[in-house]
Order: sequence, then structure tokens, then C-alpha cells
Amino acid sequence: MPAAIETVLQHADATLPAARDALFDLLRIASISARPEHAADCRRAAEWVRDFLAATGFAATVRPTAGHPIVVAHHPGPPGYTGPHVLFYGHYDVQPVDPLDLWTSPPFEPQLVEGPRGPRFVARGAVDDKGQVMMFLSALRAWHDAGGGVPARVTVLLEGEEETGSPNLEPFLAANKTELAADLALISDTGMWDVDTPAITTRLRGLLYTEVKLRAARRDLHSGLFGGSALNPINALCAALGGLHDANGRIQLPGFYDAVKPVSAAQAAEWEQMGFDEGAFLGDIGLRIPVGERDRPALQRLWARPTADINGIWGGYTGPGSKTVIASEAFAKVSFRLVPDQDPQAVLESFRSFLAARVPADAAVAVTVLGGAAPGIEIPADSPFVRAAREVLGEEYGRPALLMGSGGSIPVVASLRRVLGIDSLLMGFGLDDDQVHSPNEKFEQRCFHHGIRSHVRLLGRFGG
Amino acid sequence: MPAAIETVLQHADATLPAARDALFDLLRIASISARPEHAADCRRAAEWVRDFLAATGFAATVRPTAGHPIVVAHHPGPPGYTGPHVLFYGHYDVQPVDPLDLWTSPPFEPQLVEGPRGPRFVARGAVDDKGQVMMFLSALRAWHDAGGGVPARVTVLLEGEEETGSPNLEPFLAANKTELAADLALISDTGMWDVDTPAITTRLRGLLYTEVKLRAARRDLHSGLFGGSALNPINALCAALGGLHDANGRIQLPGFYDAVKPVSAAQAAEWEQMGFDEGAFLGDIGLRIPVGERDRPALQRLWARPTADINGIWGGYTGPGSKTVIASEAFAKVSFRLVPDQDPQAVLESFRSFLAARVPADAAVAVTVLGGAAPGIEIPADSPFVRAAREVLGEEYGRPALLMGSGGSIPVVASLRRVLGIDSLLMGFGLDDDQVHSPNEKFEQRCFHHGIRSHVRLLGRFGG
Repeated sequence: MPAAIETVLQHADATLPAARDALFDLLRIASISARPEHAADCRRAAEWVRDFLAATGFAATVRPTAGHPIVVAHHPGPPGYTGPHVLFYGHYDVQPVDPLDLWTSPPFEPQLVEGPRGPRFVARGAVDDKGQVMMFLSALRAWHDAGGGVPARVTVLLEGEEETGSPNLEPFLAANKTELAADLALISDTGMWDVDTPAITTRLRGLLYTEVKLRAARRDLHSGLFGGSALNPINALCAALGGLHDANGRIQLPGFYDAVKPVSAAQAAEWEQMGFDEGAFLGDIGLRIPVGERDRPALQRLWARPTADINGIWGGYTGPGSKTVIASEAFAKVSFRLVPDQDPQAVLESFRSFLAARVPADAAVAVTVLGGAAPGIEIPADSPFVRAAREVLGEEYGRPALLMGSGGSIPVVASLRRVLGIDSLLMGFGLDDDQVHSPNEKFEQRCFHHGIRSHVRLLGRFGG
Repeated sequence: MPAAIETVLQHADATLPAARDALFDLLRIASISARPEHAADCRRAAEWVRDFLAATGFAATVRPTAGHPIVVAHHPGPPGYTGPHVLFYGHYDVQPVDPLDLWTSPPFEPQLVEGPRGPRFVARGAVDDKGQVMMFLSALRAWHDAGGGVPARVTVLLEGEEETGSPNLEPFLAANKTELAADLALISDTGMWDVDTPAITTRLRGLLYTEVKLRAARRDLHSGLFGGSALNPINALCAALGGLHDANGRIQLPGFYDAVKPVSAAQAAEWEQMGFDEGAFLGDIGLRIPVGERDRPALQRLWARPTADINGIWGGYTGPGSKTVIASEAFAKVSFRLVPDQDPQAVLESFRSFLAARVPADAAVAVTVLGGAAPGIEIPADSPFVRAAREVLGEEYGRPALLMGSGGSIPVVASLRRVLGIDSLLMGFGLDDDQVHSPNEKFEQRCFHHGIRSHVRLLGRFGG
């Protein structure tokens, strides 16, 4: 390890209280992007981060968008730098705080609390994503203060609308493509395997989210006078969607699995060794029996196999008591989690065919796509950036970092690939019990500290 | 025909304008039972009818209930009367009038309008049920004024809560069982086959109305993080309810058809001869292809075969846009139209078994019955009262009266049978296009006039 890294790590250790104080300052700003009355707070948070970056040697700006502003900051790295240009992405906005009465302390008054794993930070945004952003910014600051300057060429991109679906991010990326060009994106918004086991997330499922509308008669009908002759669109919708899966949990859309590749033997073995306890996972939420494809291990089902879920359904009379109506329309929101190589457009066409074959000819079916359809993502395990991060985490924790999947989507990863043409390195330090989006969100100081140190190492390696 | 009947018929013809004026007086009272602000109007309507009956020689009273009052009036018939004691049931309350802007005249300002079939009455309640009630009351009045008095023993029972589900009727029947004892109930709240073809309704389907609740995880879940492992109750509800019917439209509850008797050959032939045009029936509502049991004629499917309809369904996210949620609960309102001999309780148990066999073990299913379950009704075609009404209608119209079914329920028929032990004779004069419960409700004067005359004849026959 170069001497500089060791020095910077020691400085990071010594200044941990200052890094925490800085994070607490940022946490005190109630930057709830979903609430218009907090627009000024969002701007304050953006300015706070800009100032922090400016004080770290960056050329930092707050840039307007149609919504909340985006912070962009550049550092050229040391003179003659030839290593990779890193684009760090994060977000300064946070989720709303309701239900407020479940918080044990005010959400924007960060607390240092002693927990079973040592001190923890409790506040809205403690981990998502202010805490994770401040690990990287603290690592930059440590290099700036004690390592002779930021050792790599770094662009920082922090948006303020991640929690509301990033409506202005992709247009911003497209409009500033040249300025934001980089070799890789570095994102710290994911989790570890457990508090002692670091992880890099290399798989994300994609998403196709649709709304189905089924129309039958041109008005609501009396179920006594018409029942037995007139088509009931709710009956028909249930009959069609009830066939989404077979008895073995396989999705019945034609050709649905054609592009689905099996997980590599090495990856499957690594996941198997993690000893994931699906019984405990389900037990936590009051369930016992897994669904999904019957013959697949849990982590494959969660991370590397596609799903079909009805996220909402409605139609007819839904109030108290009874109404003997045959509705004219029925609706459902149906989404598919996708894996790499599944084309969202092809899945959409297949879903339309599936419905057309199952819905009576008298019904008009319309399928609308809601939100941008996103393909699944897989970052090759042998990418030089994944390998570098893996080594860095291995040094920091004294044990190998795992390559994980996530069943959810991180839309920015697809946006960065689509618009800027770069892959993302997802190195995060959250834990499953961090209460993200919930009351009493927390972040372990131990994770925060290791996260700063890991970023110090990674920056040093890029510059080394 | 006895001379008295002929005299009374002539009087009824001559006093048709007066009968219409009386109906219009009643129609001007806005007796909307569902609206608490019309409670005084309901009472006024009850008192109006009481006074009309008192002026017709009845001992008439307005009786309180927990809701709107019930009118009860008795006439002993002529001295030494030995014929059947008739209990006439009707209701003086009406449906709400919204949407008001679709009415061509104010709903409580009855209009005499020239239509394609001659004059018609337009007002809320014109046919349902004030117009139909006033046919019977006008027939009583004609006998009273021109026939030497009411010729049969008659009790009139008029409630004011039919349009809100008759919550106080059955308790009232039970509390006044002795006073209301009779040989048959006569109800005029149904329809003709067409304007020239009289009909008696001898079949009514029953109803079992349930709400199904399916519970899975103890909280809403993120579909990315849990999809592929955690049970989705909406998926499960659709899979279960999607199997309610097979490809031939047969209901799949175990034993569901065990008690369903085929329609008699004579009845089937009579219905077949009616030449019901299901294409036109469905075309009116924008549909083309019948549902229900594939091998059954339309009128059997509508009148004499049971059905299963999902009247409402809801669960998960139903707002605009997308939310990637796996809900914790899903709900449906599922109702069954029943035919005579099907036991609602047995159908309920069978539905529970059906669901238990189809819902994953991890889900908790609860089935609640909403409203009182009612069995189907069949009045024997050879009952002396049906035969009498058939002959009377044949004389009046110069063509045979048809025996029809109705796919809906008329709960009072079941109540009268259950509490008082009597069958109902359903002789009604409404038409399919009368806009019952809708804006511009109307009643053909021709139907009103024939209705009065038919009741004059029926009363005369009971007394003859």
C-alpha cells in the first residue's frame, strides 16, 4: 500500500468526529423532494454540498432543473493523471417522514445513539443517501487535507429528486453529456451482505410496469337482470391474470424465458455459500412458504429470475356493504421484474398476446406502460473496476467482498448506461435493518467509518 | 263475466283522468327514502296513501318503524266473504334522482307526455312503485265507488324503505304476524313481456353476496426486494377467482349444481316461444357474445340458472402512475345468483372450500356474507292464484299471459314466505324501457289503464 493511503486512512480515523458532524449538518436540512414546501430546503442542501465540495478543491456548481437543482463538481485529479475518470452519483434529497409519531426523535435532529453494534446515527437520510454520499465526500476531504489533494479525476453528480423518480435527471445527463463523460460511475446507495461482510452489487433487475384496462358493457349493469348473459370484466380480468403463473410458479407469457440466461456456475456457487435463510427472511414479514419458480434457490429467485406481480387491482363496487353490479370496466397494475437480456418491449408485446388469448372477444383490452421500462443490469464480475473495488473492500474488512444482486431496480444505473455509455460500480454500506424510507432510519457509525476508509482506498488505487 | 265487473270496468275507464290525477298528487311528494332530509316527505306520502285508502272504505293506519313508517289498511270484503284474503304489498318510497341534469323535467313535477305508445307519465316513481301501487288502489276505488264496495278481503301493506333494502320490513312482519295473515300476497312491482303481452313473474333468483379478504404478509412489501419469494395476495386472489368458471361457463364450486333442477319441459318450451333476442339485448349495452353456461338458452341462463359474479375487487396501489408494491391484502365482493332448491348456506360452505383449495397455505382467507342470503323463488304455475291471474290478464289483453322469470331477487317475496308462510303473485305492468332508478323514469298510460282494469277483474274474480 502506498504510504499516502496509509496517511490518509490515519487522518480519516482521526477526523471521524468531524466527518460525522458534517453529515449531521447536512441531515439537519429537511430536503424532502416530494413536498413542495421543502423546495427551499432542497436548494439549501444542494448549496451545502456544493460548498463542501468547493472547500475540498472542486469546481462546484448548483445547476437548475425543472425541479430541484443538481450539484455538479469537477476535480481534475493530480497533474498528469492518467487513471480512470470517476463519476460519483448520489442524491441529497430524502423521503417524507410520516408517520411522524413512530419516530423516537425528530427526523431532522440527528442523534448519536448507542446500539448493539456500537454508535449509530438516527435521522431521515442517515443512510439513504446523505450518509452514503458523505462517506465519499469525507474520503475526498481526507485526501485533500492529508494526502496532497484528491488523487483521481472525479466528477460528483448529486441530484435532488431520486426519491420522486428522478424526472429531471436523464434530460440533464443528455444535455450535459460531454461535461459528464467519465470512465465509470461510482454509486454508494446499496447495502452490505451483513455488518461484517462487504459487498458489491453487480446485478439489478429491470422493470416493466403496466396498467391493464378491460372494458365490457358500455354501462354498469344489474347483476340480477344481466348475470348469465353479459360479460363481467372483473371475472374476465381475474380469469386472465389468474393464469400469469403455472402451478410451478413459472410465468406463462409466451417466450417469456427465452432470453433469460442461467446464472453462471461460479456465481450460483458463491450465492449458495452465503447461506441465505429464506425462512427467516419470510418469517420477518409473517410468511412461511416461498413463491416463485419452484426449483430455483432463493437468491436466484430474488436476484436473477424475472417475476410477475399484480401491484394493484380495482373495479366495480368497493365500498361498504353490497351492490349487485356488473361493472363496465376493470383495471390492474401489473409489473414484471426483468433480468439482463430480457427486452422490456418484447415482454410488453408478449403480455399483450397473453391477454389477447385469454380475454373474451367482447372485451376491449388496453395495456399502457407506466414509467420508463428498464432492462435488467449485470456488471461483469471481471470488470477492472469491480475487481479493484473487491480488492479494496477485502483489504479494509480482512475478508472477501461478495458479489450480490438486488431484486429492485436503480433506474439511474440504466440511465447512466443509456445516456453516458458507462457502467456503474455499486459499492454500498447500508444494512437490511437500516429502516430506509421508514421511521427511525439509521446508519451504523461502523459502516460509515469503514465506508470512508474504503473510498479512501479506492481513490488511492485509481490514482496509484 | 258478472255484471258488476263490467260496470266497474266502465267506471274505471271513465275515471281514468281522476286516477291519473291521484297518482300525480302522490308523485309530487319527494319520498326519497335514502335521504334523511326527505324523511318528512316519506311520512307525507304514507299519510297520503292512508287517506286514500280510508276514503276507499279501509281501516287505514300509518305505523311507526325504526325507519320510515309502514301503511297498513284492512278491508273485510263483503259480508259473508269466503274467498281468499289478499295481502297487497307495495312501497311508497322512491330512488334518489341524481344525476338531476339528465332529467328533461323536474323529477317531482309529473308530466303527461305524448310518446310513441300514446301518453306516458314522467316522474320519479312513475312506475316504481307509486304508479303500480296506484293501479291497485284505483281498482279498489272503482269497486268502492261503482261496484257496491271492495269485493274481497284485502289487507294493504305499503312500506317506505324498499329502495334502501327494507331493513325494517321483516321485523314488522314478524311483530304483526297475526294481523297480516293472508292467503296470498299480491305484488305489482314487476314487468310485462312487452307492451301488448301481459306476464306473471313466477321465478326469482336468490342471492348470496360475499366479501372475500385475502391476507398475506403483515405489511406492504417492495416488489423488487421481495418479488420471487413473498406471496402476492392479488396474484393469489386472481388465481383463485379466475377459476370460478370453466371454459364452458360452468361454475366450479364443488357440488354447486347438485340442487339445481332443470326447467320443466313445458316452461322451457314456453320461454323458447317468446323469441327472446339475446343479440339485441346485448347489443343495447354494447356487447355481442353471451357468457354463462354455453349449452343453455338465454332465458334459462337469465332466469333459471345460477351465476357467479365478482361485483367488486380491490387491493394494492390503485392511484395514478406506478408503485412497486406487493400488497398485504386483497379483497373482492363475490355474489351468486341462486335458483330454487339451492341452499345459500351450502353454497357459502362450498365457496369457502373452493377458495381453501385454491389459495396458497400462507394466505389467510376470510369470507363474510353481506346482506341476508336469499334463496331462489318459484311459484308453482298451477297455483290457483297464478291461474286466476293468468285468466284475468288473458281476458284483459285478449292474449295469453306469459309466465316469466326474473334474474334478480325481490327480497320481500322471500320475507313473506319465511315470516307469513304465503306465496306471492307477481302481476306487474312495467316495461323494460321505463328507466327505473334512472333519470326520466316513465310509465305508459296504456299500461296504467290496463293495470287498473286487470286488478278490477282480479278483485272481482276473488269475490265471485
